Amino acid sequence: MTTPSSLDSLIEALRCLPGVGPKSAQRMAYHLMQHDRAGAHRLAGSLQLALTALRHCQRCNTFTESDICSRCLSTKRDPSLLCVVETPVDMNMLEQTHAYSGLYYVLMGRVSPLDGIGPAELHLERLLARACDGVVREVIIATNYTNEGEATAHYLCEMLRSRGVSVSRIARGVPVGGELEYVDAGTLAQALRERRPLAG
Amino acid sequence: MTTPSSLDSLIEALRCLPGVGPKSAQRMAYHLMQHDRAGAHRLAGSLQLALTALRHCQRCNTFTESDICSRCLSTKRDPSLLCVVETPVDMNMLEQTHAYSGLYYVLMGRVSPLDGIGPAELHLERLLARACDGVVREVIIATNYTNEGEATAHYLCEMLRSRGVSVSRIARGVPVGGELEYVDAGTLAQALRERRPLAG
Repeated sequence: MTTPSSLDSLIEALRCLPGVGPKSAQRMAYHLMQHDRAGAHRLAGSLQLALTALRHCQRCNTFTESDICSRCLSTKRDPSLLCVVETPVDMNMLEQTHAYSGLYYVLMGRVSPLDGIGPAELHLERLLARACDGVVREVIIATNYTNEGEATAHYLCEMLRSRGVSVSRIARGVPVGGELEYVDAGTLAQALRERRPLAG
Repeated sequence: MTTPSSLDSLIEALRCLPGVGPKSAQRMAYHLMQHDRAGAHRLAGSLQLALTALRHCQRCNTFTESDICSRCLSTKRDPSLLCVVETPVDMNMLEQTHAYSGLYYVLMGRVSPLDGIGPAELHLERLLARACDGVVREVIIATNYTNEGEATAHYLCEMLRSRGVSVSRIARGVPVGGELEYVDAGTLAQALRERRPLAG
């Protein structure tokens, strides 16, 4: 009887946003309905558009609106370098350093046994085919320096090495336990420059 | 060239949410597209529905899906008490104390000269007509204890007093400078119980 159901639904729906609890969701819903209906309208439209337009690049997995993303199609990038990251956000972070001009492969995840994600769930055969295509000279592993990211890096290294692919890892300039998304561009650029060959 | 335009638009659109800056908006957008497309779909639908369904109650101004909200229509509320609040959220906060069973009038704003909101912009003639309808015995002013809320309370008191309406103010149990939305229900219930007649 107290809150209209459409307002209740909106408050509930806003909680799908990361970091938004019941109190924030209530504030957001009332703010939108009271002060920013135009913003709410734009947001609804943008969500619909993104859901319709965005898909995964068939080469690197990142978000794109075409079959192959503009970065993979670019002739200005060095195709002999392939950088492996966990998520599209991590890829963006590396791009913002302006310290890398090779291509990317986005895992869209990490090896995480506790969540039931093993190497099989990451569809690594596509990465393997890419790394062995004769164009790639070096695979740079830029997964996070968390336990899962390290496990993923270790697994990738073993897998690629056994096929004779040259593998490196971004330097441990990234704070241990930290995630790429929260590191400043300078530190990240350094870590990229100081990448080291992985010991066998 | 780097981020697809629909993703850029979504990040930009998310910034209409209060407290969401560029970094949070980016995290939210990627999270939705990567991990919670169902949630994004629900959110878009809820926004559309709320924009279509929600309007203002013709009696108290709060959000409702009908002409008159269920609270104004209820026969269980005491129509001789009229509580004036700034926003629908403030009304909800008072309801959650279960210490009040009268009716409400939501100003949908406050007197705020710096923002160009004077008494005229708040359409107080409707509140005045309501307070003088012969049913209301007491108007309880529950605007925030901020400068603007106090100025609003002062103005309302003068206006209602001059028409012979009995006016009270919720007790200053609410921290000075604080806003109703962030006060615990116990403090708020106390402030409601200890309301005092306004000195002339």
